[in-house]
Amino acid sequence: MDKRSFTTIERHMLECMNDASHDEQHAYRVLYAALDIASGYQADLDVLIAAALLHDIGRKAQFRDPSLDHAAVGAEKAFAFLTGQGWTEEKAARVRDCIAAHRYRKRGAEPSTIEAKILFDADKLDVAGTIGIARTLAYKGAVGEALYSISPLGEALDGSGDEGPSFFREYHFKLKNVYGKFYTERARELAEGRREASVRFYESMRGEVEETHRIGMRRLEEALEV
Amino acid sequence: MDKRSFTTIERHMLECMNDASHDEQHAYRVLYAALDIASGYQADLDVLIAAALLHDIGRKAQFRDPSLDHAAVGAEKAFAFLTGQGWTEEKAARVRDCIAAHRYRKRGAEPSTIEAKILFDADKLDVAGTIGIARTLAYKGAVGEALYSISPLGEALDGSGDEGPSFFREYHFKLKNVYGKFYTERARELAEGRREASVRFYESMRGEVEETHRIGMRRLEEALEV
Repeated sequence: MDKRSFTTIERHMLECMNDASHDEQHAYRVLYAALDIASGYQADLDVLIAAALLHDIGRKAQFRDPSLDHAAVGAEKAFAFLTGQGWTEEKAARVRDCIAAHRYRKRGAEPSTIEAKILFDADKLDVAGTIGIARTLAYKGAVGEALYSISPLGEALDGSGDEGPSFFREYHFKLKNVYGKFYTERARELAEGRREASVRFYESMRGEVEETHRIGMRRLEEALEV
Repeated sequence: MDKRSFTTIERHMLECMNDASHDEQHAYRVLYAALDIASGYQADLDVLIAAALLHDIGRKAQFRDPSLDHAAVGAEKAFAFLTGQGWTEEKAARVRDCIAAHRYRKRGAEPSTIEAKILFDADKLDVAGTIGIARTLAYKGAVGEALYSISPLGEALDGSGDEGPSFFREYHFKLKNVYGKFYTERARELAEGRREASVRFYESMRGEVEETHRIGMRRLEEALEV
């Protein structure tokens, strides 16, 4: 890809971004991780670079209307944008396929091409490790969801059985399970190297919160007994 | 304190709360930590419990008008509320003094009473450890600030020299420096026990982000060279 094409696609990505956890820094990390992973494969770097930069440009639409799938919306937006930039339909369609198949949950399409698998892995890598923790916490803050849930008795729960949304719940249902979901060896290796720090963070935070509630609730009970 | 008084104050706190990082879970953790710390001192638990529950009820006003100091606003709101509940002016004033002096930055008043020192420490304890990390990240998400800053060349910066707001900057300017700020031994001990997990999180996240940018930027340069 030449630098001018890169800058044009980059600028379009920046115009389409707004929220904090899927912001442009995420797009750059996914781009960089995708290029790292790709060095072990015969991938079309033009397709991969465009797909990585543009993979989340459907987020805004999904945010406004949660019934929409940002992967499907983004795939079509990217196709329209790239053909408008003079890309052939064949090549723009390969970018569309990558973006359509990058989603973690409720996937409409499984990644089939090597570029789609690399994009999927690069995106999932941003759910692993401490960066996955950080993005999830920023997102919880942005949508006003709790860090953890409280039992009817006032105990802080560990999240594994939470029904309502919370950071601890997200840890159990998404963050800790991402490590088995990679297609490529390089992504698996990078994720494994980041796994322990993520587990330690959860365990430490869980311990802090549990201890604070347990000791404090006992003291409060004593203070209210009189 | 009797249970009915507790419930009345608790309900007032809940009505006054809204944002994610200083929400009611923070108020309960501060209450619990304050009662834990207080067991080593001759503190007035009525004053301490009311001050802990109500210490952040001025946040909403400060959020709407950043020129206001939530500690000063909350102190006056709590005084008015408690005297309205039949508390003597002398006792309500001791709660007011605690709340007025609890703030970390730009403090208008230093905590002088034992109850004010305990509240200050219990509140600061929620800045230490992984809970401090989690609350800061949720806050960054809520206000749409970045996790880290990028140099003009595209490198991810470590936050120590950031001029604009970022999570990494907050780590260097607030989170990592809280450990020397406690008045009580128990709070210092609790904070120290949580320190390493906080440092490890920052170091791990810093490493992940730095590596991703460093490797990816090199690969991107190669891909754009043609």
